[in-house]
Amino acid sequence: MNKMLEKEQWNGFEGRLWKEEINVRDFIQNNYKPYDGDESFLEGPTEATNKLWGRLQELQKEERAKGGVLDMETEVVAGLTAYGPGYIDESMKDLEQVVGLQTDKPLKRAFMPYGGIKMAEESCKNYGYEPNPELHKIFTEYHKTHNQGVFDAYTPEMRKARHSHIITGLPDTYGRGRIVGDYRRVALYGIDYLMEEKKRDHANCGCGTMTDDVIRLREEISDQYKALAGMKKMAESYGYDISQPAKNAKEACQWLYFGYLAAIKTQNGAAMSVGRVSTFLDIYIQRDLDNGVITEKEAQELIDHMVMKFRMVKFARITSYNELFSGDPTWATLEVGGTGIDGRSMVTKNDFRFLHTLENMGPSPEPNLTVLYSSRLPETFKKYAAKISVDTSSIQYENDDVMKVSWGDDYSICCCVSATQTGKEMQFFGARANLAKCLLYAINGGVDEKNKEQVGPAYKPITAEYLDYDEVIAKFDTMMDWLADLYVNTLNLIQYMHDKYYYEAAEMALIDTDVKRTFATGIAGFSHVVDSLSAIKYAKVKTVRDESGLVVDYQIDGDFPKYGNDDDRADNIAVWLLKTFLEKIKKRHTYRDSEPTTSILTITSNVVYGKYTGTMPDGRKAGTPLSPGANPSYGAEQNGLLASLNSLTKLPYEWALDGISNTQTMNPDALGHNEDERVANLVNVMDGYFDQGAHHLNVNVFGRDKLIDAMEHPEKPEYANFTIRVSGYAVKFIDLTKEQQMDVISRTFHDRM
Amino acid sequence: MNKMLEKEQWNGFEGRLWKEEINVRDFIQNNYKPYDGDESFLEGPTEATNKLWGRLQELQKEERAKGGVLDMETEVVAGLTAYGPGYIDESMKDLEQVVGLQTDKPLKRAFMPYGGIKMAEESCKNYGYEPNPELHKIFTEYHKTHNQGVFDAYTPEMRKARHSHIITGLPDTYGRGRIVGDYRRVALYGIDYLMEEKKRDHANCGCGTMTDDVIRLREEISDQYKALAGMKKMAESYGYDISQPAKNAKEACQWLYFGYLAAIKTQNGAAMSVGRVSTFLDIYIQRDLDNGVITEKEAQELIDHMVMKFRMVKFARITSYNELFSGDPTWATLEVGGTGIDGRSMVTKNDFRFLHTLENMGPSPEPNLTVLYSSRLPETFKKYAAKISVDTSSIQYENDDVMKVSWGDDYSICCCVSATQTGKEMQFFGARANLAKCLLYAINGGVDEKNKEQVGPAYKPITAEYLDYDEVIAKFDTMMDWLADLYVNTLNLIQYMHDKYYYEAAEMALIDTDVKRTFATGIAGFSHVVDSLSAIKYAKVKTVRDESGLVVDYQIDGDFPKYGNDDDRADNIAVWLLKTFLEKIKKRHTYRDSEPTTSILTITSNVVYGKYTGTMPDGRKAGTPLSPGANPSYGAEQNGLLASLNSLTKLPYEWALDGISNTQTMNPDALGHNEDERVANLVNVMDGYFDQGAHHLNVNVFGRDKLIDAMEHPEKPEYANFTIRVSGYAVKFIDLTKEQQMDVISRTFHDRM
Repeated sequence: MNKMLEKEQWNGFEGRLWKEEINVRDFIQNNYKPYDGDESFLEGPTEATNKLWGRLQELQKEERAKGGVLDMETEVVAGLTAYGPGYIDESMKDLEQVVGLQTDKPLKRAFMPYGGIKMAEESCKNYGYEPNPELHKIFTEYHKTHNQGVFDAYTPEMRKARHSHIITGLPDTYGRGRIVGDYRRVALYGIDYLMEEKKRDHANCGCGTMTDDVIRLREEISDQYKALAGMKKMAESYGYDISQPAKNAKEACQWLYFGYLAAIKTQNGAAMSVGRVSTFLDIYIQRDLDNGVITEKEAQELIDHMVMKFRMVKFARITSYNELFSGDPTWATLEVGGTGIDGRSMVTKNDFRFLHTLENMGPSPEPNLTVLYSSRLPETFKKYAAKISVDTSSIQYENDDVMKVSWGDDYSICCCVSATQTGKEMQFFGARANLAKCLLYAINGGVDEKNKEQVGPAYKPITAEYLDYDEVIAKFDTMMDWLADLYVNTLNLIQYMHDKYYYEAAEMALIDTDVKRTFATGIAGFSHVVDSLSAIKYAKVKTVRDESGLVVDYQIDGDFPKYGNDDDRADNIAVWLLKTFLEKIKKRHTYRDSEPTTSILTITSNVVYGKYTGTMPDGRKAGTPLSPGANPSYGAEQNGLLASLNSLTKLPYEWALDGISNTQTMNPDALGHNEDERVANLVNVMDGYFDQGAHHLNVNVFGRDKLIDAMEHPEKPEYANFTIRVSGYAVKFIDLTKEQQMDVISRTFHDRM
Repeated sequence: MNKMLEKEQWNGFEGRLWKEEINVRDFIQNNYKPYDGDESFLEGPTEATNKLWGRLQELQKEERAKGGVLDMETEVVAGLTAYGPGYIDESMKDLEQVVGLQTDKPLKRAFMPYGGIKMAEESCKNYGYEPNPELHKIFTEYHKTHNQGVFDAYTPEMRKARHSHIITGLPDTYGRGRIVGDYRRVALYGIDYLMEEKKRDHANCGCGTMTDDVIRLREEISDQYKALAGMKKMAESYGYDISQPAKNAKEACQWLYFGYLAAIKTQNGAAMSVGRVSTFLDIYIQRDLDNGVITEKEAQELIDHMVMKFRMVKFARITSYNELFSGDPTWATLEVGGTGIDGRSMVTKNDFRFLHTLENMGPSPEPNLTVLYSSRLPETFKKYAAKISVDTSSIQYENDDVMKVSWGDDYSICCCVSATQTGKEMQFFGARANLAKCLLYAINGGVDEKNKEQVGPAYKPITAEYLDYDEVIAKFDTMMDWLADLYVNTLNLIQYMHDKYYYEAAEMALIDTDVKRTFATGIAGFSHVVDSLSAIKYAKVKTVRDESGLVVDYQIDGDFPKYGNDDDRADNIAVWLLKTFLEKIKKRHTYRDSEPTTSILTITSNVVYGKYTGTMPDGRKAGTPLSPGANPSYGAEQNGLLASLNSLTKLPYEWALDGISNTQTMNPDALGHNEDERVANLVNVMDGYFDQGAHHLNVNVFGRDKLIDAMEHPEKPEYANFTIRVSGYAVKFIDLTKEQQMDVISRTFHDRM
């Protein structure tokens, strides 16, 4: 008989279903206390916080001085219990309210070979470290890695497409990432109950007929079970027994962090997000506050220390990775805000506390703080978030109203803009298809405009001197079909190999066994395709060919509407493009019957994509960056911020459930003459933007001059933590490559609404 | 355009298709020369043979003196190139016509952890060796082994069934075996062409849609390709370049052996068979003889030395394995004889040479020499084989006429009695279901009669005092359905894990990519079920119950017909049983859509199965051995050898395509008064037996007294190599455990025809 759990650690908590089954959402809905007051209750940093953060800043400085890496492991293979306990500073370890490091030392990067031994070794060598050769032997002769598995299965066509960068950023050399374990479960239930439930799932996995799917899942559940046992051992090394539920706020933060630590000790995906933890933790803090167990000062200290840990997440990366995703991001994405299905605001005091860490410890790119926005959030909270944006440019906004329709009210953002239901879903993530390049392939019959190789199928190229819209569309449609096919199949085999060689046991242990899987694809070069097609349709575009007849340049005669000006002629093309691509993705077989989605998101890879993409019919020159995400092309926006935002709102989120990224920079003066005005205006802008159904906004508030000054004088103390939002994440500006800095500087800075 | 290969190494060889594609059968059919002469051409051992074999016998003696193991590896993980070259005796290495050892020293057993690190370690510890603890760490923390994968996925029901021995001998701790690479391909084509063809297969694997099946196969082909490259490196260490075809008989033997060596360096399946190589090699020898390149003496020396290598194959095993398969067998099964689809005898001089090794170097259990028998084989060959049987009891016979229908004329025996088309098929092998125990479960409602646990489903037990045939059959049918389901599903997951953690890349590299897969199940306790059902039907069987009501014994009142007496009343039950079980196996999902087959074969595991099986309604007492394979029960045969054989012929081979094993021992005097008479009579017996459609016969010619003397005086020189046929393989009698020796002694010795 199912026995409802009763735990003394739950004293004072309401509700029933979450005691009958693992159901953190039900716990939250039954216990959280919405807060609609302002930020005046917030407390500054404690002495301990200042000391620890001071020490950490020294270490970060040292890290930057050493070329971006402070220390690397060369002997020990990463694992849950590969290291004993580690602290920010051994001499101050009693100050740490939340303990746990990825390795034995702060900012030291672990050796993670499972995704690819070559990449693990190369990342060491890039920074002057030499891994033990025995590790090479073990991970080539004895144990195959994910990377080797993928390359064993790749077709020549896939290799070519990868090489020519029509598909780029494939997670074939490291972890898959984008899987958010429900780390809250560790705090709410304790490990023992989670193990019990996984044991029960193992017993109920399959009716007895051992198909491959059932066998695979049975083994996965076993691995998850063992990972849970490993988490207990890991926590024990820090002196904590996490077998039982957390009994107070401090334990809740610690238990939850141990869950997340398990993930980042074992996986090195590009995005290793924390998830939606704020409201959950507020329940514990509020109970302790109500019972007089802690003070607000102590509560803020807990959150500050926890956030400090999220600021320390590091992975060993190689040069080409850093070029794609510049500035050492980890996408430790963490959400605040949002509303419930029942209409109540889910904003708690804790959501203020998380934003307040940017004041207590200054701006920081990580954790990747994300406000789940709705115009119906309390005004006080909207204003406080806007104020933080104006002051720090460190946070992003995503439309809770549209996401809630698909993902309910307990989703987490698993990278930049991609929602997954916390503890119920995982994502098969995979890079982007370069549709800009695909358009050029359509024109040139599959021949790559950069390396002149036949990469795509040898369809009939366009031979006319002037491009005809209907001909181009027909050929583009066919070429997109080829690309979608190749792309989905490339991802299929990458995901297969991830499961085989680098399964995320620790993360999946904190997700329902009967998990829903999305298959996340992505689009690069969006605005350039739209503008190019618009140019072909509304102006006259003449082809310029090289000696072999390949089109390498275009002469545009006449004006044409551009995406980003609220002009339906261009924006309709954008909507058509998104839908057409999604349909081509959707009709194909996807690994483990996952649900295909797509995104318009490039992160900083727009620079690398651009480098490998020839001149476009919209006038964009070969080699220059593509515009990032769903942003309009640089210089295209002629009608101000609101017109630009309006163009974005026309893209239905339902067709890009993996997210539509939009990054905007506003001159402080354009927003208002003082902070109050700026805050009020920013809230107004966002209310309008999101009410129209737009999905995402990265908000930067600064002028071009500041960036140029920071680029030229990175040594100025004011720029040490100067953080900006780029496509999908935040980054310290001075950590960007020069190329990336130039790209950011050349983007549109809105001087008017 | 497909280019027909032309190679100078092929001078004098006829045919076309085998040059257009990999097709060894076509090469053989176009080039072999049937031989219908007698054995008078054969040559004795050369001095080199005597020296090497002498040294090897010393080593074997040393091995026996050390408790069965001469030396074990504790540092190096087995692999194609894990060792440099090794020789029987470094000081005599120039004498070796065919070189290559599994490790660096003769009879030294390799460390093979992939099937299961526990078993690899335990096998060392069983013999006083201590493997390097670093290996433990690598194969538990970094690389999961097959064994761990299987146990991660097992259901509690599977563990119980395994524990109670209703299913036994599951290959869940070591290699799967029973895969015969087409080692001849190395000789005929050389490695480079084989690599080229695998590359082409990789290019043509799948139409582009990456389903799991296609991805898995693509990776497998890559692994095969790498294994081929590894074989070249392995051969290079011995000073041979096997990239091109073999140019003469010596190279052909050497190349072929390198192919086999690759298999036994990387896999430790129970059965590691050589395959059908005799006729193939004869073509090379005959060409060299015709061209005066070698003499018959040299030809025999080549075969002797090659066979010496097959006699040296060793694997590290644990105690419980040795109890199941006693006497250190490796099933290096090698076929001679057979006829072609076109009706021509495929017997060549080489088939004589292989049998002659038993005279040149004395009897030996390995290679497991198998005569593919047909009454239409040349009389001279049949007589020579019979003479070898009478003299050495070292060979087995299998019915080529019935096998040819299903498997064509180029099949190999991959264990004892299981045919697979050479280079075109592989087998998913998997142990046996104990139908004797299943019958007891049917009677006792799924409760195990030995450990009293509810292992099977809790169906209604039989409560009557006297067993009613119809009631028993109905309950047995239902219980068999449960057992077949559990058995097939257990095998499904074992095979899945084999592919995942211990894939046979080297063997599969020498098999067509588009391989046909059989799913081989097996039956244990066959005769006891038949006789029990007969007793219930034709006599009166009273149940004897323990205090809990469980039936633990039976009182049989009256006579009843027994299987093995050519009595249709019993034999019809046998036929029913086989068909019923096969149908239950066939209706289930099998891994990779493999073709389900079954066998009646227990090898020496009949002793262990018997130990865990309670008293049967046929009068067999609890704990005593089951009769092996398809053999009638001990003491059941009352009507002489021919009547016993006739019972066997009624079992349709078509319903047991994995083989029907029958082991018989004839008193020399029963066969005739002198060797000529004995040979003639044995040929007559086999002609009759196989013409009636029987599948297999292990022929032993000796009396019980000899066995008793050998058991009591194993030190006598005449018993050093005294070999007998047990179920499915041959073994040195003195290497059997005492228990196994007693079992063999208690079997039927036919004193009359």
